Amino acid sequence: MRASDGAATAGTAVNWMRNVWYVAGFEHELDGVPWVARRFLGVSAIMLKTAAGEVSALEDVCPHRLLPLSAGRRHGDELQCGYHGLRFAADGTCLEAPGQPSPPARAHVRRLPLLARHGLLWIWLGDPALARPELVPDMRWNRDPQWTPSRGYHHVQADYRLCMDNLMDLGHESWVHRRTIGQGDEECIPRYPVTVSVAGEGLVRAHREMPNIEPPPFFAMVLDHHGRINRWQTAIAMAPSLCMTDFGVYPVQASPDDAFRSHVLHLLTPETEHTTHYFWAVARNRKLDDADLTEAMRRATEHTFDEDAAVLSLQQQQLQRYGGAVPGVALRVDEAPIRTRRALEALIRREAQEPGFCFVPPPMVDDATPTLAMAA
Amino acid sequence: MRASDGAATAGTAVNWMRNVWYVAGFEHELDGVPWVARRFLGVSAIMLKTAAGEVSALEDVCPHRLLPLSAGRRHGDELQCGYHGLRFAADGTCLEAPGQPSPPARAHVRRLPLLARHGLLWIWLGDPALARPELVPDMRWNRDPQWTPSRGYHHVQADYRLCMDNLMDLGHESWVHRRTIGQGDEECIPRYPVTVSVAGEGLVRAHREMPNIEPPPFFAMVLDHHGRINRWQTAIAMAPSLCMTDFGVYPVQASPDDAFRSHVLHLLTPETEHTTHYFWAVARNRKLDDADLTEAMRRATEHTFDEDAAVLSLQQQQLQRYGGAVPGVALRVDEAPIRTRRALEALIRREAQEPGFCFVPPPMVDDATPTLAMAA
Amino acid sequence: MRASDGAATAGTAVNWMRNVWYVAGFEHELDGVPWVARRFLGVSAIMLKTAAGEVSALEDVCPHRLLPLSAGRRHGDELQCGYHGLRFAADGTCLEAPGQPSPPARAHVRRLPLLARHGLLWIWLGDPALARPELVPDMRWNRDPQWTPSRGYHHVQADYRLCMDNLMDLGHESWVHRRTIGQGDEECIPRYPVTVSVAGEGLVRAHREMPNIEPPPFFAMVLDHHGRINRWQTAIAMAPSLCMTDFGVYPVQASPDDAFRSHVLHLLTPETEHTTHYFWAVARNRKLDDADLTEAMRRATEHTFDEDAAVLSLQQQQLQRYGGAVPGVALRVDEAPIRTRRALEALIRREAQEPGFCFVPPPMVDDATPTLAMAA
Repeated sequence: MRASDGAATAGTAVNWMRNVWYVAGFEHELDGVPWVARRFLGVSAIMLKTAAGEVSALEDVCPHRLLPLSAGRRHGDELQCGYHGLRFAADGTCLEAPGQPSPPARAHVRRLPLLARHGLLWIWLGDPALARPELVPDMRWNRDPQWTPSRGYHHVQADYRLCMDNLMDLGHESWVHRRTIGQGDEECIPRYPVTVSVAGEGLVRAHREMPNIEPPPFFAMVLDHHGRINRWQTAIAMAPSLCMTDFGVYPVQASPDDAFRSHVLHLLTPETEHTTHYFWAVARNRKLDDADLTEAMRRATEHTFDEDAAVLSLQQQQLQRYGGAVPGVALRVDEAPIRTRRALEALIRREAQEPGFCFVPPPMVDDATPTLAMAA
Repeated sequence: MRASDGAATAGTAVNWMRNVWYVAGFEHELDGVPWVARRFLGVSAIMLKTAAGEVSALEDVCPHRLLPLSAGRRHGDELQCGYHGLRFAADGTCLEAPGQPSPPARAHVRRLPLLARHGLLWIWLGDPALARPELVPDMRWNRDPQWTPSRGYHHVQADYRLCMDNLMDLGHESWVHRRTIGQGDEECIPRYPVTVSVAGEGLVRAHREMPNIEPPPFFAMVLDHHGRINRWQTAIAMAPSLCMTDFGVYPVQASPDDAFRSHVLHLLTPETEHTTHYFWAVARNRKLDDADLTEAMRRATEHTFDEDAAVLSLQQQQLQRYGGAVPGVALRVDEAPIRTRRALEALIRREAQEPGFCFVPPPMVDDATPTLAMAA
Repeated sequence: MRASDGAATAGTAVNWMRNVWYVAGFEHELDGVPWVARRFLGVSAIMLKTAAGEVSALEDVCPHRLLPLSAGRRHGDELQCGYHGLRFAADGTCLEAPGQPSPPARAHVRRLPLLARHGLLWIWLGDPALARPELVPDMRWNRDPQWTPSRGYHHVQADYRLCMDNLMDLGHESWVHRRTIGQGDEECIPRYPVTVSVAGEGLVRAHREMPNIEPPPFFAMVLDHHGRINRWQTAIAMAPSLCMTDFGVYPVQASPDDAFRSHVLHLLTPETEHTTHYFWAVARNRKLDDADLTEAMRRATEHTFDEDAAVLSLQQQQLQRYGGAVPGVALRVDEAPIRTRRALEALIRREAQEPGFCFVPPPMVDDATPTLAMAA
């Protein structure tokens, strides 16, 4: 009866991997509210934290007359449908159907594996038998005493793969972000060469160094320094939909070991074929207790990603109108996005062809200062 | 040329009966206005009352360039199109086409049989040759000196059959209507047994008695009594889309003959496949001249049906998303809704298979006090 | 990759001619703004005036990631995409792709022939090899020292052919425009006979004379005369989508040579299958320097065409609901609209069947005072 069961329907184009953990939100979102209801890969989920502190998710639909459970009530750790009062345990078992001694055997709700790790919620939409906790990617920078995060969320009106294209393409900053992290035509970022490498199955890196540049507004702000700087930038994509921008900036006179560095976590999860949840955390390695800086970086990042979201939504509309491949004509800046798509498509194929296959996410980044050509 | 002609198109799933009278509104709605325009079974109708007091309906579309007649003007009992001034008599005949001596023979508008009975308007969307006035169901309680009605209307964003499911299911009160006519988990209405009977072709009854209960807020209000009460409730459905809730409440010390009794008329008419006109009248047998009570009951009923309309709209959205049968898993509370659907489907089949067949609506209820088990 | 290339797709119903010049706007619209972006025949165009005063149009889509160029920036006569900074010359050549020595060969934008004539912009959506300037229709009254125009624009939510039907039908004035140029039932315009003639390939005229009538409000205003008048009216349609209403009014005692005369230019261009650009200019032959009259005529015309736009939008909605031919039943007032449609359909067929065929637009009107029956 359901539109989106565990296995992909034969003959349907599959746009996403299934047997992976996707980010479902920040763990703290479940505190102090009865639940959070959200859609992932087209499946509506209701997520809650039990009195014992466990997190749990069910498909957000009553098996009786299809009302969303999120239109009902919570009693302790149980959910009660708002139409006929059916009660469900956190594992989806129907505990009571008012008006009869016991509920029908088929009146259970599909449980969706959910766990909390690194301050994030991770949900599994694929075969639950394969949902091993050790397959959760390492995103420790979201909650690590050595790093302070500025966190946020954007709902993007675009296919998650357009979002990944955007994050892996180090060429759009100068135009989309000219008022925040880019520099416009004067000091054109795309002119600095990018080295793209496939760092393992499902893992792509694009690295660039910009020695001795005028700091764009965002970097002048975080460094509290208006003289010329060195800047590096590594965009990392890992299947199915996690990206990280590892950047470092430091005055030209300083050492890269003293760099203000950040791991910008871009935690994408498809909501539907044309919309994406974009959870993000900008984790920095300096001024860890500076709450004003945390908030200033949050605001600046939010504004920067607003610029991306506007472009991505336009691009999605154009794609739906014109159809065809993306990009229509490939440029050099597309090398990393194209390699990222190929890595993803290879894993989507493996998932379809190898029963029981699960992608094991490799580490995305090394915390040691990278070896830089510009420092030599 | 028209989307919805008299006969159903071959190969299309038919969701409703055609050769029956549907409620098109309250008769008083036509007083003091040029017309009322409304859609029934997908057909747009314009209804008016002539100077002689006759009611009349036409399809609301000019045969020339398709403008709705309701975008034009009324002159006496004639309708004039607002684009080229064609004038139509109340029977759909074109009386004048400006610019030519006489109108073309084909320039007539389809007349839709309409009549007034029991203070209601009744419209016939099927074969006009079969539209006999004696087939109008008996809904006299809407205008009867022994009963005082509180009337209203809801536009429901759901298939009329979901509305009927809701009205015939005596199990949702405790949750949907916990603040009005239900009682929540404390005194759970579904625990009282329901007796379902098929009372004739197209006629289903579900009866329940609740002796010695705390009165829900609505019943305490109408009885002006806060002690424990006896309550009975009979939900009656008659094809194609009329329901009635016959209820009685009285203090436990009193006799059922003294009960405050009501026939709640639920007069449903499909507007489109996914929307329903819901005209209603709560006719009571006590305090007939108490205008404050009439208004208080109107307000309370409006609020109660608001609760249903919200649930039904959600359910319709979920059905369009998930598809499948209704209910997905059947409970005991579904016995009456399921029997009601079967009775309707049987009549839809008879209509399709027996040319000239018309359903003759039986009486829905007996005004005598019912024989009650709880009174014995 | 594109939805709307130069040639019509085989098997698709073609609703419009392609190898003709369509009005794209007023020339002055390009002054003082970076560009005007507008859709024609389903194709999005961006139009600009270069520093040298030339007009130029490109398809409004970047070949890289499909962003509209109108979401980017203009530098001198070049357009720069707002996503990755690609720069395009006014002829669509890609001049620069940041991050690489030279742009890919395929990274050009489709140029759309555009020229300025008679104060109007004319765009060619068909085969550019056929776009000869001498095929531009004569619309000199929009900018002619002997005529003073009042200009405006309506965006109409209807197929352009419904707009032409409306303009060629001299029967709707009495009802749609009863408050502006019509007279209602009292002095019913359709009763005056209309002479319809096919004046050449793609050219239809409908002429009517109304001697000795009460002046409708608009004509009383322009004449500044409240006594009875003579009025003539010639509606002219020329394929693919240009109409003109040539009218003259004068006091019954005066000579037609002294008439207040106007060529009302109705410059229609399909935006999509269901929406139309309606540029208009009411050019008059009297009181040429009266700026107050120019503005009063603009306001009155705007109000009159608002009335048409409302009716046309309703008719379009009804057509999409009911389908079928237009008109559903033909009246005498439909003679000119039907002949106009036939003339258009014949040319659409010629275009499909004769490769290289281009319609040569004949003159629409003669400025000499027409020979009038009512003057005799």
